[in-house]
Amino acid sequence: MENQVLIFGHKNPDTDTICSSLVKEILDKKMGYENRKAVRLGNVNKETQYILNYLGIEAQDLIEKVEEGQEVILVDHNEFGQSVEGIEKAKILSVTDHHRIANFETAEPLYYNAKPYGCTSTILFEEFKQNGLKIDKKEAILMASAIISDTLLLKSPTTTDHDKKALEELAKIAEIDVNEYGLEMLKAGTDLDDFTGEQLVNLDAKSLEKNGVKFVIAQVNTVSIPDLLKRQEELESAIHNEIAKKGLDFLVFAITDILNSNSEILVLRK
Amino acid sequence: MENQVLIFGHKNPDTDTICSSLVKEILDKKMGYENRKAVRLGNVNKETQYILNYLGIEAQDLIEKVEEGQEVILVDHNEFGQSVEGIEKAKILSVTDHHRIANFETAEPLYYNAKPYGCTSTILFEEFKQNGLKIDKKEAILMASAIISDTLLLKSPTTTDHDKKALEELAKIAEIDVNEYGLEMLKAGTDLDDFTGEQLVNLDAKSLEKNGVKFVIAQVNTVSIPDLLKRQEELESAIHNEIAKKGLDFLVFAITDILNSNSEILVLRK
Repeated sequence: MENQVLIFGHKNPDTDTICSSLVKEILDKKMGYENRKAVRLGNVNKETQYILNYLGIEAQDLIEKVEEGQEVILVDHNEFGQSVEGIEKAKILSVTDHHRIANFETAEPLYYNAKPYGCTSTILFEEFKQNGLKIDKKEAILMASAIISDTLLLKSPTTTDHDKKALEELAKIAEIDVNEYGLEMLKAGTDLDDFTGEQLVNLDAKSLEKNGVKFVIAQVNTVSIPDLLKRQEELESAIHNEIAKKGLDFLVFAITDILNSNSEILVLRK
Repeated sequence: MENQVLIFGHKNPDTDTICSSLVKEILDKKMGYENRKAVRLGNVNKETQYILNYLGIEAQDLIEKVEEGQEVILVDHNEFGQSVEGIEKAKILSVTDHHRIANFETAEPLYYNAKPYGCTSTILFEEFKQNGLKIDKKEAILMASAIISDTLLLKSPTTTDHDKKALEELAKIAEIDVNEYGLEMLKAGTDLDDFTGEQLVNLDAKSLEKNGVKFVIAQVNTVSIPDLLKRQEELESAIHNEIAKKGLDFLVFAITDILNSNSEILVLRK
């Protein structure tokens, strides 16, 4: 399609990036801009896939770069380093974002709507309201999911009253129980069943050396520490293997509950 | 006052910068933010002074720099090079602007409301509407004046339908005839009576040399070319003096009508 305006969030897309770009396409079309097309810059993660499955829809098309002069709309990011290849020479029509502004510039005036909220979808929700546009069930599920994800069920320190109010209203339209749906969604995102013990120990691991002591600090996120601790024996065996393989003095393995920031720590020595 | 948030536009303030910062203070106070204070970064020009006189108010305080951590709100600009000394270490709470974004960054998320309109005050006008706030006569005069100034009475190519609609509504509240008031305001801004012929020829003059030919191109802006041409003799005498003094081959003096971009050109040779 000629003159198509591409809408996308950041690289390594999370739920807010995927959902907000889909919602921005719908919002703009409701405002009369037909030539909008949401795309994505990377693979959909497990949490987001849960939402797409729930809605019975496919993820938007993947793109890797844009040509010079391509008209684009950014959501959930502004820094060029987090954006598509070729962004420097694209024509940015608008930005909707909740991050600080840095490493961003345009040649022309544009629409830029940033608010220091917990989630981009909360800003989009307010745009629907300001423009007197109806929010359908699908849009409500997309925006509610983004808010649940970015604010960890309204528990993260970045959560604002705007996010709370938006989620409350969206949940009604979406006909979801926020806690029930949200927990399933976050659980899907932190589903560790597909990983072997060795993979879990290496998912997010930093190798450190201090005063001749060699050690590793590793972490995994979950919504249920007890669930993962059912695999404690397997994990400890994997940790012992890592210690032997890398000649470590010890390894710290933190299992963090993302909902309340509690962690269970396993420390094993050589 | 402790914890005062300073609101200002760009250096070399024009009417939009002065009026929009005054209006932003009023808007924020109506939204419940009491600790706002509009300031300015430079002298008020003749056009803006006309508006302040019309309203019987003083210009806001002048500041030259801000301390580290000072909370600030920018209107009508974003580039640090056009902003206050110390802006890099200030805490920017919000920006309302109609320019491209460049040489701007923040450490924290913020409110950023940019729209590609002809004037910052048009964006503020829409914020009043979106928040269901009443616009009083004084605010209407400030915003209408800014729109008239930045769009040259809706004639500049940057004028949008948003500016037209805003000015129409503001003029009613302001109880002004847009053309009559606007022309007087623009006339005040281009008032050249205080300048001598020599000063007029040097107000905006570029010295050039090409293929051994030395010449100057000078320009003045006005809303009435005939008015200025009443001083044609005096101008020509001043131009002859410039030619003799600088050893020029010729001097081009353009008198531009800012309302329709017509120019009357005087060219005198040595």
